[in-house]
Amino acid sequence: MTQKRRITQGPPIERFYSVIPAGGIGSRLWPLSRADAPKFLHDLTGSGQTLLRDTWDRLVPLSGEQRIMVVTGRAHRAAVESQLPSLTDPNVVLESEPRDSTAAIGLAAAILEHREPGVIIGSFAADHVINNLPLFQSAVREAAAAARAGYITTIGIQPTEPAVGFGYIHYGERLEIAGAPSALAVDSFKEKPDLATAEGYLANGSYLWNASMFISRADKLLEEIGRNKPKLLSGLLELAEAWDDPAKRGPAVDRIWPALEKIAIDYTVAEPAAAAGRLAVIPGYFDWDDVGDFASLAKLNSGGRKSDLAILGENARVLSDSSSGIVVSQSNRVISLIGVKDIVVVDTPDALLVTTSENAQRVKAVVDALKITGSTDVL
Amino acid sequence: MTQKRRITQGPPIERFYSVIPAGGIGSRLWPLSRADAPKFLHDLTGSGQTLLRDTWDRLVPLSGEQRIMVVTGRAHRAAVESQLPSLTDPNVVLESEPRDSTAAIGLAAAILEHREPGVIIGSFAADHVINNLPLFQSAVREAAAAARAGYITTIGIQPTEPAVGFGYIHYGERLEIAGAPSALAVDSFKEKPDLATAEGYLANGSYLWNASMFISRADKLLEEIGRNKPKLLSGLLELAEAWDDPAKRGPAVDRIWPALEKIAIDYTVAEPAAAAGRLAVIPGYFDWDDVGDFASLAKLNSGGRKSDLAILGENARVLSDSSSGIVVSQSNRVISLIGVKDIVVVDTPDALLVTTSENAQRVKAVVDALKITGSTDVL
Repeated sequence: MTQKRRITQGPPIERFYSVIPAGGIGSRLWPLSRADAPKFLHDLTGSGQTLLRDTWDRLVPLSGEQRIMVVTGRAHRAAVESQLPSLTDPNVVLESEPRDSTAAIGLAAAILEHREPGVIIGSFAADHVINNLPLFQSAVREAAAAARAGYITTIGIQPTEPAVGFGYIHYGERLEIAGAPSALAVDSFKEKPDLATAEGYLANGSYLWNASMFISRADKLLEEIGRNKPKLLSGLLELAEAWDDPAKRGPAVDRIWPALEKIAIDYTVAEPAAAAGRLAVIPGYFDWDDVGDFASLAKLNSGGRKSDLAILGENARVLSDSSSGIVVSQSNRVISLIGVKDIVVVDTPDALLVTTSENAQRVKAVVDALKITGSTDVL
Repeated sequence: MTQKRRITQGPPIERFYSVIPAGGIGSRLWPLSRADAPKFLHDLTGSGQTLLRDTWDRLVPLSGEQRIMVVTGRAHRAAVESQLPSLTDPNVVLESEPRDSTAAIGLAAAILEHREPGVIIGSFAADHVINNLPLFQSAVREAAAAARAGYITTIGIQPTEPAVGFGYIHYGERLEIAGAPSALAVDSFKEKPDLATAEGYLANGSYLWNASMFISRADKLLEEIGRNKPKLLSGLLELAEAWDDPAKRGPAVDRIWPALEKIAIDYTVAEPAAAAGRLAVIPGYFDWDDVGDFASLAKLNSGGRKSDLAILGENARVLSDSSSGIVVSQSNRVISLIGVKDIVVVDTPDALLVTTSENAQRVKAVVDALKITGSTDVL
């Protein structure tokens, strides 16, 4: 099965290691995504396998099965290992509690650099959807070449519409890097824009979507963290030093991990490196989506036809009369929709969500409200 | 409890018997209403008791507990008896299968006339909602007086809006009947109109809503049936003759009941009697609703405020953000609504309905589709 899905484009990249941070719950996909069933453990594309497994499959040709590290929560260990039977024990990094992406990716970088000085790492979210793998893989190969030349490198997606749900990368001049002919200097990162701003970005032409992919030498990544957060770096290095010693790891984790600053890698690495001219971007022309909310999920599963009703769920029993949008069925209940347009219905055994595509971003607020009201049983 | 709810307006009406046909499932309220949980067995008003029990309670002051007959399906016997502990055995008429309202009400009339010649009967649906009981009871008292004078009598509701979900009664001249000062001759019955027609009715001023209440001498009702459907009448008389003999009832039912014509009492009694000038109407100024669909249920439970979200269900856990309409919760699931207006969500253990008030009348079509597709487990 796995063999068939691999599209090998040449040999694995030299000295390259893939890192998959598998942490986020995906609150905007509640009640499908939960603390105990995060987004990366769902099949959101009808591919028949989880997003995590899809991610693994597209990285194998780039780094080889032995060189993919997964950073995840202790609670997800069993689920992750059952999804990825080829994942080896040294490649599983378990977080005792979430400390955001600088700690997660930084720890992977520190462990790998300690084991193999000079290694190049590429970190790729566990819960994104990518189509057209040859284009993805060639972008990563270019990014690895730029990383080898010393750049912190990202892959930015060529926008196809003025999306307001993604961050943007503003690029500048072309860089001249051997093996990375399309590399560009990154001028700055932009937060999720409003529609007018997004339309401006698209018209301008020198903006790409930020897909949270970072490829760099591990030592360069750590250096960048150290420049901005020296205390965080020293914690990571200390952890990495102890990591492969069974007697030392546990105590080091207990002492150091909970005290690490919670901060996204965007602020500790991406933005400062861009400002300092140390960040390169490879434009990606493959299809990419972070499946950030149910509007995105509906679009992804309806083949782009807005009038259609997308149905997700193996045992879905859906009866639709003049309705469009998406139904996610995790129960075996009969679901009837009559005359509801752009609707989002997510039906799980203990929680039901009814909203519209337009309101999809507001789902997170409901999750927050459920926390406040103590309805944590359904989170 | 029951005692408190009774608003006794004088003594019971002389020689009067109430009949409650409790038959219809209420398909437009699926998946709340089902074959095994028809509309009349639900609390749709938040009163804390079923519509059937509400109906019983408002008839007790008019006829007394010993003089209320319930015609229902065999399958509902236990549920009906548990709702109405004072219902006596001779007052339970069980249908082996549904044969529509002429058979149901006609059989009750025939049995009661056989037991007590000259009895006046009033038939009242088991699943309507009525508020302002003193006005209801005084209308029934007037209707009974008109019935005693020989009229087939109905109570028509003074319209408060151009409703398209109800039938209408067009009335003519005032009748001079002792004890029934507001009695009017009925000119004709009108099917559910379109909006323009309904607005015309309201502007005209001589139209009332048809609430399917019929009050008449039992013998006059039977006479009316016999004029139009002599075979149906002879079947009913034969059944009534055998009814109170335990040895004869079963065989008579098996032989006669399944062969009775299925036809609504509107066609066998109301319309022909109106055409012949034998039908009187008492205008009713009480609040009445047949709760025909979820739009009506939403209105009934939101106090008329269109911006509100009505919530029905004892254990409902509903979180609403900028939503309006109605949620019926029969599970203990958390239900979250975000930005959905005029929505109808009906959440039951095995079926879920999502529609809008505007589409409420189309629910029946879904039930029909479920029948056709063999999903009878949820009907």
